[in-house]
Amino acid sequence: MKATRNFKNPLITPADVKPSREDFKVDCTFNAGITRYKDEIIMLIRVAESVISDDENIIKIPLLEKKDGKYHLVIKTFDKIKDAEKYDFSDSRTIFAKTNNGEKVVKYLTSLSHFRIARSKDGVNFEVAEKPFMFPDGSYETWGIEDPRITKIDDTYYINYTAVSEKGAATALAKTKDFISYERLGIIFEPENKDVCIFPEKINGLYFALHRPVPKAIGTPDMWTAKSFDLIHWGQHHHFSAVTDDGWENGRIGGGAVPFKTEKGWIAIYHAADKNSRYCLGALLLDLEDPNKILAKTKMPILEPEAPYEKEGFFNNVVFTCGVLYENRVVKIYYGGADTVMALAEMSIEDLYKALGI
Amino acid sequence: MKATRNFKNPLITPADVKPSREDFKVDCTFNAGITRYKDEIIMLIRVAESVISDDENIIKIPLLEKKDGKYHLVIKTFDKIKDAEKYDFSDSRTIFAKTNNGEKVVKYLTSLSHFRIARSKDGVNFEVAEKPFMFPDGSYETWGIEDPRITKIDDTYYINYTAVSEKGAATALAKTKDFISYERLGIIFEPENKDVCIFPEKINGLYFALHRPVPKAIGTPDMWTAKSFDLIHWGQHHHFSAVTDDGWENGRIGGGAVPFKTEKGWIAIYHAADKNSRYCLGALLLDLEDPNKILAKTKMPILEPEAPYEKEGFFNNVVFTCGVLYENRVVKIYYGGADTVMALAEMSIEDLYKALGI
Repeated sequence: MKATRNFKNPLITPADVKPSREDFKVDCTFNAGITRYKDEIIMLIRVAESVISDDENIIKIPLLEKKDGKYHLVIKTFDKIKDAEKYDFSDSRTIFAKTNNGEKVVKYLTSLSHFRIARSKDGVNFEVAEKPFMFPDGSYETWGIEDPRITKIDDTYYINYTAVSEKGAATALAKTKDFISYERLGIIFEPENKDVCIFPEKINGLYFALHRPVPKAIGTPDMWTAKSFDLIHWGQHHHFSAVTDDGWENGRIGGGAVPFKTEKGWIAIYHAADKNSRYCLGALLLDLEDPNKILAKTKMPILEPEAPYEKEGFFNNVVFTCGVLYENRVVKIYYGGADTVMALAEMSIEDLYKALGI
Repeated sequence: MKATRNFKNPLITPADVKPSREDFKVDCTFNAGITRYKDEIIMLIRVAESVISDDENIIKIPLLEKKDGKYHLVIKTFDKIKDAEKYDFSDSRTIFAKTNNGEKVVKYLTSLSHFRIARSKDGVNFEVAEKPFMFPDGSYETWGIEDPRITKIDDTYYINYTAVSEKGAATALAKTKDFISYERLGIIFEPENKDVCIFPEKINGLYFALHRPVPKAIGTPDMWTAKSFDLIHWGQHHHFSAVTDDGWENGRIGGGAVPFKTEKGWIAIYHAADKNSRYCLGALLLDLEDPNKILAKTKMPILEPEAPYEKEGFFNNVVFTCGVLYENRVVKIYYGGADTVMALAEMSIEDLYKALGI
């Protein structure tokens, strides 16, 4: 059982999004959070922008720097030929510093991501805002903000996201009640940790989240869980679901969509990549009272890169979700394709149960 | 200004500690936590043991495995010649799996660490217990428990330590009131995170800790801080002190001794290693009301590997502390030498202030 792609896919492409500055171009519009807000569906799109350069040997890097106590967007310019001694420009996404021991050290990212709101009545046709909703700010976001996930708790929408800087990729939290203004709540998982999914209600008195630390010396990029009284302080870390030795999830595994509640348990649609970095989506069924208990797991992906906009783009062969809408027994999976576009695939809850073998 | 070594150094060596099993040998007795308990000084020593092998081509690995719902110590045997296709035995501390892409993946550690109590009246002459106080147990400790740090809060002694398993190196917490029994409180910092130092009192209503995540893709092994209401759930992560571009702390930096309070501020004695993994000790002076504020920092190490037992051992050129006693205006730094022995160096608080340039 697999999800069915919407015939209007891709729903959002870089051409649909106006750059935030005249000297910027939009490279990617992907990995969006999704939620229903009043009579609208709000998509919070990760928009990755780079600086236009007229000379193919000149790379311009957008990033934040501190001056007079505040963080400002600045553009750093590199010459691929003149700076070749110090830097490695072979990866279009990253500038590496050349080190004596041959270790690759990430020095800059070539693009900077912010969050842009798109609004829709039907969940398919979206109108993208002219300006960013949330732009990187502060010392933890100098290289951008990425992969927002929206969890509605009571009347507040919590947005967790990856805060990227030279200090590492950490998970930060913000909140909004109106999608006009928002408040930053700081770093909730220290680097290297992304793919955090916060459950939409307390379970036995505690908030619950999936997270995905990436250890350096020992261990693989696996899913863990944690608990919290207040969404700010997290503990009771539990190793939850590991990469496999073989198959489609032998590279890395991490939280995808914010989990949703069904009569059979919590369902978490997650991503997994194999050692060739081919990203697919799977699903987990978790116990309603104790989500650390995995009741069922899809053996095969419910979505894998097959469409052209999933197979080719900024990073090929990727389907990656940050959010679903579960309404009227239909699971609407909003997902990024090839790190470039936003798309939609749907399946009935009954089909998802079948995919889970229940 | 530097600390002065005790003339009885090293205070504890592997020869002083009885193996926990007849087929084990003690390789290292180091990185101990220290505290005053009633009329005694208690040292909680990290004891690293390996399995005796009569054949130099046979390596026996001690680790924990789950059977019938419980974790048991088992011995795995490897043949350096027969298993050479699958494993790399070139590092005496670690067995690496050979991978197709040439990446070194840690598969086993050659030794297993537990915690042993040593007791003293004078802080110099210690009597080492015959048996372990705390032995690895459970899924997060299958490869051992390491580097205990003791924080006394009211009448409870909290012990944080590195829990090592194939899942990574995480920080766990336990507590005791009598150093006879103890209770495990779970994982407080997910992998990869060690060198956690918990401050001995709440500051403005919150517990405070130094921690040291090791990110993989972006960033260096730097010191961070976090806050907690209950010692179990941690948040408000703050990037605190980074490795430098050059000099004695350009490789990694991390918490050392549990910080202590003086009239000028909190003092945290920390460790730093250069790119050649030469480990030294430095000190930070932190604001009493807001320890995220660094008021002063030693420019040069207050202790660096110079004595024979610091320059040569299981891992050469290391001084590494997990705890100090600060009594009668004297700072007694208990530290591991060359990852093999325990030693003591002392300095007056006035000399430490001078080293801090205050």
